[in-house]
Amino acid sequence: MTQPIAFQLLAQEGQARAGIVSTRRGDIETPVFMPVGTAGSVKGVRFEQLEQHDLDARIILGNTYHLWLRPGLEIIRAAGGLHRFIGWDRALLTDSGGFQVWSLGELRTISEAGTQFRSHVDGSLQFLSPEVSMEVQAVLGSDIVMVFDECTPGQAPHSEARQSMELTTRWARRSRDRFDVLQREGADPGRQPVEGLSGTQALFGIVQGAAHLDLRRESLERNLEIGFDGYAIGGLSVGEEKSVMWSVVGEVAPLLPAELPRYLMGVGTPVNILEGIERGIDMFDCVMPTRNGRNGMLFTKNGIMNMRNKKWADDFSPVDPDGTSFVDHQYSRAFLRHLVISGEMLGAQIASQHNLAFYLWLVKEARRQILNNTFAGWKEEMVRKISARL
Amino acid sequence: MTQPIAFQLLAQEGQARAGIVSTRRGDIETPVFMPVGTAGSVKGVRFEQLEQHDLDARIILGNTYHLWLRPGLEIIRAAGGLHRFIGWDRALLTDSGGFQVWSLGELRTISEAGTQFRSHVDGSLQFLSPEVSMEVQAVLGSDIVMVFDECTPGQAPHSEARQSMELTTRWARRSRDRFDVLQREGADPGRQPVEGLSGTQALFGIVQGAAHLDLRRESLERNLEIGFDGYAIGGLSVGEEKSVMWSVVGEVAPLLPAELPRYLMGVGTPVNILEGIERGIDMFDCVMPTRNGRNGMLFTKNGIMNMRNKKWADDFSPVDPDGTSFVDHQYSRAFLRHLVISGEMLGAQIASQHNLAFYLWLVKEARRQILNNTFAGWKEEMVRKISARL
Repeated sequence: MTQPIAFQLLAQEGQARAGIVSTRRGDIETPVFMPVGTAGSVKGVRFEQLEQHDLDARIILGNTYHLWLRPGLEIIRAAGGLHRFIGWDRALLTDSGGFQVWSLGELRTISEAGTQFRSHVDGSLQFLSPEVSMEVQAVLGSDIVMVFDECTPGQAPHSEARQSMELTTRWARRSRDRFDVLQREGADPGRQPVEGLSGTQALFGIVQGAAHLDLRRESLERNLEIGFDGYAIGGLSVGEEKSVMWSVVGEVAPLLPAELPRYLMGVGTPVNILEGIERGIDMFDCVMPTRNGRNGMLFTKNGIMNMRNKKWADDFSPVDPDGTSFVDHQYSRAFLRHLVISGEMLGAQIASQHNLAFYLWLVKEARRQILNNTFAGWKEEMVRKISARL
Repeated sequence: MTQPIAFQLLAQEGQARAGIVSTRRGDIETPVFMPVGTAGSVKGVRFEQLEQHDLDARIILGNTYHLWLRPGLEIIRAAGGLHRFIGWDRALLTDSGGFQVWSLGELRTISEAGTQFRSHVDGSLQFLSPEVSMEVQAVLGSDIVMVFDECTPGQAPHSEARQSMELTTRWARRSRDRFDVLQREGADPGRQPVEGLSGTQALFGIVQGAAHLDLRRESLERNLEIGFDGYAIGGLSVGEEKSVMWSVVGEVAPLLPAELPRYLMGVGTPVNILEGIERGIDMFDCVMPTRNGRNGMLFTKNGIMNMRNKKWADDFSPVDPDGTSFVDHQYSRAFLRHLVISGEMLGAQIASQHNLAFYLWLVKEARRQILNNTFAGWKEEMVRKISARL
């Protein structure tokens, strides 16, 4: 039986990997960064720009929680799935909503059955479970579906983290079961068989267990028993110490199946992406490039620029002379600063586009270095350079 | 002596005119609509889109008040003028700041010398006068400069409107004098002689006088005595009855020199633009297409669409099948509604671009009808069609 996606490992340097994830909607060179289109659009960057040469994003992420609540399943089903609704024909990954409802804190109650919460849109009482999440993601028709999990923050004590991890395991089983039924029933409007692939959606498992390595290993084993098309590491970059994140990733990543893609959820800063790549991660997503862009913060090869800083006020040189996006060369720092300070939409657009171009360049260049077997030295130098404050 | 701009009248049907304004930064076919770039960018629409075929805006407007306060003259002078600062090489018109400071209401005091007010940016005390406005507009290097005037609203009683009109007349004289000195001194960084044109900035006078036709005629005569490169009608579309606006425009426009461009400031709705064209107006500007776009209101050939309306929620047809912009065909009404309701930037971008494309199509089509001597009938039908609520 053919698989929904295929992963080809092209080169490895230490743990760092360069590969290709083949999906029913095109090939994705890894390591890859996935721009986040929470509610159906990547904030500040138009779809045609995402497809252009200077970004060339092969996969973007949509949020099940947001899209389920608004516009709602009826609309997206009538549109023929998320790809058609938003007008994006490349690959899409959707999260399960688990992290979003967990983030609601006091506003939700978690039980064995699932999570009850109040909608941020209209205050109505809603219920999300593994089954509901799979049904929503089937209607969205994303190419990669995530299991419904409970996020356990790094600081959680062992007993609490164990309970949570065991719940996540049971939810993973229920996700898999419901997902398989939905695939057989053809609930996914994105079905598109291509050579060597089944044409159905792919399902990724998520390893949880907070900062406890024994729980992480156990979660991993339970996930492998169920069996998924790829594996993610969750519950990181949610306020824990950086050392916790890297001890978990360093422990878990090498234990994941080498022949499947590995995804570190919600990470992160450019430095953390390089650290993740070094530890064997293939896929990343984060709202940081667009969110920080809207606040006037630019990531560059030479360090971080806060465009609100007065020092840029009369700097008429290009936004980023080394930048890969046309916005880097078309506008001056002084003009961008003026736009940011004045709250003009164009400022958010330029900064978001620049940041995404930088993130996509960074993972592409990391890939080139791995293929060239020069990643280690390059990574060390880049971490130093991009951490500077300009 | 050559002039800063030249106006060529190509056809006239009734009072309606089709012509060409030649500026040092290219030709502008009239009637023309000028998108407003208040603080140096047209909100929601990027410069490269303004230049593309589906918009092809030949002239945009910048606000002296906003740009003077932020980023300030020092920055724009160092950049080499507003064109270079924002990266726009087509024609620019700047207003004088008179309307903006007048709009501050309680926050400003008007005297013979000028207007004292508190900056909306930092609360500092500022002073704007005919001389200061001319100096600011010289540094901005706009291709068309407006005299500094006091706006008199249509409801103003005769004695008050006379006082205000007389003040505006004295300010117009002072504007002209200071402007001429600045041109001789070469204060304008945008100087660019082209064939048949002097290469200097052009200066437009403004006819005021509220709803009182005798005052309007007197204001017009005083303006003609001073002599300008074009004439605007000000103080309309600021809350007066519609009948007042059309009685003033109908009275004043035919008395303006036929060989110079005529500009109706701050107008307006698509219907009002057609009414203005019918009465002999050549130039228009308004924030409405972009501001209403940001609120989800679309102007189309077939009427007005409020994208927040539930009726669009599952309408997967294109935004505007008859629209001239690519956004009209690339996105569905259902998706645009979702974006608007969700407050996504892309919704504001699509709606703003659509509206500007519609405005620019409307004046272009009006021009074609005038050249064809079929404007009257077409205008009547269009007014009926575009007033509908879809």
